[in-house]
Amino acid sequence: MAEALAGFRPRRRTPPETVALAAALRRVQAEPVTAPHPLPGFARSTVDGYAVRAADTYGVSEGLPGYLTVTGAVAMGAEPGVSVGPGAAVVMPTGGALPPGADAVVMIEYTAEAMPGTIEVVRPVAPGEGVVRADEDARVGQEIIGSGRPLRPQDLGMLAAAGVTSVRVHARPVVTIFSTGDEVVPPETETLKPGQVRDATAAALAGLVADGGGSAVFGGIISDDPGALEKALREALPVSDVIVISAGSSVGVRDETAGAVALLGPPGIWCHGLAIKPGKPTLLAECAGVPVIGLPGNPRSALVVFRLIGLPVLRLIGGCTQPPPEPSTRARLSRDLASATGRLDVVQVRVSEGVATPVFGLSALLSVLTAADGYVVIPEEATGLAAGTEVDVTLYA
Amino acid sequence: MAEALAGFRPRRRTPPETVALAAALRRVQAEPVTAPHPLPGFARSTVDGYAVRAADTYGVSEGLPGYLTVTGAVAMGAEPGVSVGPGAAVVMPTGGALPPGADAVVMIEYTAEAMPGTIEVVRPVAPGEGVVRADEDARVGQEIIGSGRPLRPQDLGMLAAAGVTSVRVHARPVVTIFSTGDEVVPPETETLKPGQVRDATAAALAGLVADGGGSAVFGGIISDDPGALEKALREALPVSDVIVISAGSSVGVRDETAGAVALLGPPGIWCHGLAIKPGKPTLLAECAGVPVIGLPGNPRSALVVFRLIGLPVLRLIGGCTQPPPEPSTRARLSRDLASATGRLDVVQVRVSEGVATPVFGLSALLSVLTAADGYVVIPEEATGLAAGTEVDVTLYA
Repeated sequence: MAEALAGFRPRRRTPPETVALAAALRRVQAEPVTAPHPLPGFARSTVDGYAVRAADTYGVSEGLPGYLTVTGAVAMGAEPGVSVGPGAAVVMPTGGALPPGADAVVMIEYTAEAMPGTIEVVRPVAPGEGVVRADEDARVGQEIIGSGRPLRPQDLGMLAAAGVTSVRVHARPVVTIFSTGDEVVPPETETLKPGQVRDATAAALAGLVADGGGSAVFGGIISDDPGALEKALREALPVSDVIVISAGSSVGVRDETAGAVALLGPPGIWCHGLAIKPGKPTLLAECAGVPVIGLPGNPRSALVVFRLIGLPVLRLIGGCTQPPPEPSTRARLSRDLASATGRLDVVQVRVSEGVATPVFGLSALLSVLTAADGYVVIPEEATGLAAGTEVDVTLYA
Repeated sequence: MAEALAGFRPRRRTPPETVALAAALRRVQAEPVTAPHPLPGFARSTVDGYAVRAADTYGVSEGLPGYLTVTGAVAMGAEPGVSVGPGAAVVMPTGGALPPGADAVVMIEYTAEAMPGTIEVVRPVAPGEGVVRADEDARVGQEIIGSGRPLRPQDLGMLAAAGVTSVRVHARPVVTIFSTGDEVVPPETETLKPGQVRDATAAALAGLVADGGGSAVFGGIISDDPGALEKALREALPVSDVIVISAGSSVGVRDETAGAVALLGPPGIWCHGLAIKPGKPTLLAECAGVPVIGLPGNPRSALVVFRLIGLPVLRLIGGCTQPPPEPSTRARLSRDLASATGRLDVVQVRVSEGVATPVFGLSALLSVLTAADGYVVIPEEATGLAAGTEVDVTLYA
């Protein structure tokens, strides 16, 4: 598993595209954005008060106030129509532009009107106090948003502040999802014939693909006829950034998937079989520049593997080199968990009041995943975990 | 703050609407979904092997195999055309329907062909072994998806398995966002006049609204003229589930916001001023059934408050009673943090190798938020936190 995670790193990257800022949340910036001009762009007051020359307030106190002449007022959003000379004070709203000559703003709380047109100041201010410098949020040319990380709400705010209303982001990777197996029928099938099951994996995979910043395309349910899968894969190859096959789980179907993938083009199959439970019969390949992931037939196994192996690949292809943090928590295990050395075990758990209780059940059961709050990974080198062990639980968001 | 979080709980809920399963990721189920029939619906093999009567394998071992006659084979997705009598075995693919008469499936690994048409079995199976019961994933009528929690990928899978291809979810709450202040101009303004700033808050708030499952509508930038805000709010009231006003930060504008909100209708202003830093001049109100949140004028303060106070309200209105977990981590503080008792402090931090380093800067600076990986909350009762203290950092996803 460690080898697969570190080694299966396809080189494909989606090209940049331009999207409006309003559609850019969680999109992955393809290139850094620099400030086109200083931000906020002018020295601004951070308080309500009076713009002054700081030197005029040195030494003042409650007992010995300084007196300044009010020579004007600054209006919001307007150029100051007045400058501040020695002994002068100008009325300042929070966010207003500092007038020429002033180097500080004294808070209104430390002033009082002594007589009409004159204020007394009872606390000194230092130069720069009560003021945001013209380039304090960003200097011109400074990188304000880096590349490779999904854009967060505050990043959109910063871009808006800089007047950047469209961004160059990586196109969403197109992930074509195939389901296989003669027993699998579309979810909209109202009445099942004996032996049939509805395709649960494709819908769930599409959700994971969206979580990973991709765009899911349903390739359909491919019958177990020899050649059908190869044909479908060949057609999908030129229009996909990733291909995912949730394989039927019988021996014959597994062979069919590997066989079809092997015919698609170099470099071909990277590995077939992973030391993970559930999820052993996973196939990783790269064909004609497109990563191809063959998942186990059990929906639960397929989803566990795609989450652990597929999502990092998908993010990488979408240009995301700094994946967002996942929710997690520390919890004590409610009971012993067995595991085989050399195999990574993924155990679904419920978490309540700091205790992680395993949800057991066959890997064929989806209800194990829907009942779980998250999962615990038992590392390859461990032979199991004892009850009471404190473990990291990755939580489903 | 504790009072605001616990007490400001508007009763409004968005009505249910029907959406296709493919569009239901993270939508909040308005009513529970029960299984329309048992799942998987028939007893299924979990392994490749032979369907048998378990009793026929009792006592067998490597040294003393049992011999069974192969009487047929089950095909995937088809009704078994054969039943299993005493001494008989039927070839089973993983996921195939268990034939009548059989009560277990012996794995192919524990069998060998003794002669054409006869297998030897070297390990006994118990009844039920190698089989998923017909209702093991869900009994008919069992709740498979609860209400009040955003749908996760695996939930979509479970719904697909049950043939549920559209769901009743709470409509996305419509959040109308107003910006105010004569200095504020739209982000697309190419050249700023002195004293002007682009509206950063609205774009960032829209991102937070989307994160919270809402649908943001920009109400525009309202001038500081008396009456303009009240008029705009009145027009928005009938078409909004939440109204957010990012207020200009000068004293006059703050008064204007409270004054306008007070005129909108009962029950009116719930609180004005919160013991939080940054974010003190926050206004919470409910007017004619619509919660109205007045945010501070500084973009950074506005975003901190909306995240802490606005998002829980938004989720509630959207029917989400079980909010998804947020990413977080434990880290040691790199330095002392001062705080006043009775005030909740929100400190932006960078996190690296288990150390949380505060990002300082005026609350007017958005760059503090874009540089941060997350934030630390210093509780109201604390007077500060010492360097080295282990703290919970809520991480930005």
